[in-house]
Amino acid sequence: MAVRSLENLLVEELRDLLSAEKQITKALPKMAKAASTEELRAAFEEHLTQTQGQIGRLEQAFEILGHTARAKKCLGMEGLIEEGKEHLEEEMEPAVMDAALIAAAQKVEHYEIASYGSARTWARDVGQPQVAELLQATLDEEAETDRKLTELAERIVNREAA
Amino acid sequence: MAVRSLENLLVEELRDLLSAEKQITKALPKMAKAASTEELRAAFEEHLTQTQGQIGRLEQAFEILGHTARAKKCLGMEGLIEEGKEHLEEEMEPAVMDAALIAAAQKVEHYEIASYGSARTWARDVGQPQVAELLQATLDEEAETDRKLTELAERIVNREAA
Repeated sequence: MAVRSLENLLVEELRDLLSAEKQITKALPKMAKAASTEELRAAFEEHLTQTQGQIGRLEQAFEILGHTARAKKCLGMEGLIEEGKEHLEEEMEPAVMDAALIAAAQKVEHYEIASYGSARTWARDVGQPQVAELLQATLDEEAETDRKLTELAERIVNREAA
Repeated sequence: MAVRSLENLLVEELRDLLSAEKQITKALPKMAKAASTEELRAAFEEHLTQTQGQIGRLEQAFEILGHTARAKKCLGMEGLIEEGKEHLEEEMEPAVMDAALIAAAQKVEHYEIASYGSARTWARDVGQPQVAELLQATLDEEAETDRKLTELAERIVNREAA
């Protein structure tokens, strides 16, 4: 597909996001396993369930736009996950590992905040309010997850790791 | 260096950020060249100057912490820039290309917002308030750049591209 219109760009971005979300569903169980703080492990597990719902919303968006829900490898997420993996292989005190896991997860959340933000605005601009609403719902969840991770880092992890 | 303490993790993150910023200084001129809207081109050029100042702050932070300012390849930024490059190679209407450039730039900004946010908090937690202050100054600039890009997208680019 040659990208010529903003609607085409939106569809491309949704394909990128579908790939990103699928990569995240594979990474989260490993992150949960590596976490020591019980609350952090629970947060990763909860986010996995949430991510599955977000994939469902993307599929709905494709349907509304009349396109097949086909993922296109998200290179940005691939790099972020590779970077996170490097940490998992290092020797660290459990609390320091938790701090590293939170930082890696927040990079992932911020990737999604940026992408869903652009896609939501484009959907609105091309006259697809239902799609914009679906993307906004996920954007709100990602922002909330990021906020929770910050709170967890400040309240528990960093104090123990310092 | 085996990563065992939160201070080690901070130094690792600063090395990652130094690499990220250096990658950005190479990407920004290409993005400025590809932009059609004059204000967007100017924003990329201004951000290049700002990025050079941010590299200076990272170097100061390394000095305070007693470490050499050595970059470690940031895989996250590498993926984000690869992803952005894919768009530069596509055929697009100028306004659609501008929308794609802004989205790519916002992914980069959000990577930095997440990383500087974690590093700033860690610096504070390990009792390095001067380092925390340097990182906060850059964090504020990144958040402001992200805000400006959103404003530019909503005001000019998307309306023309839709």
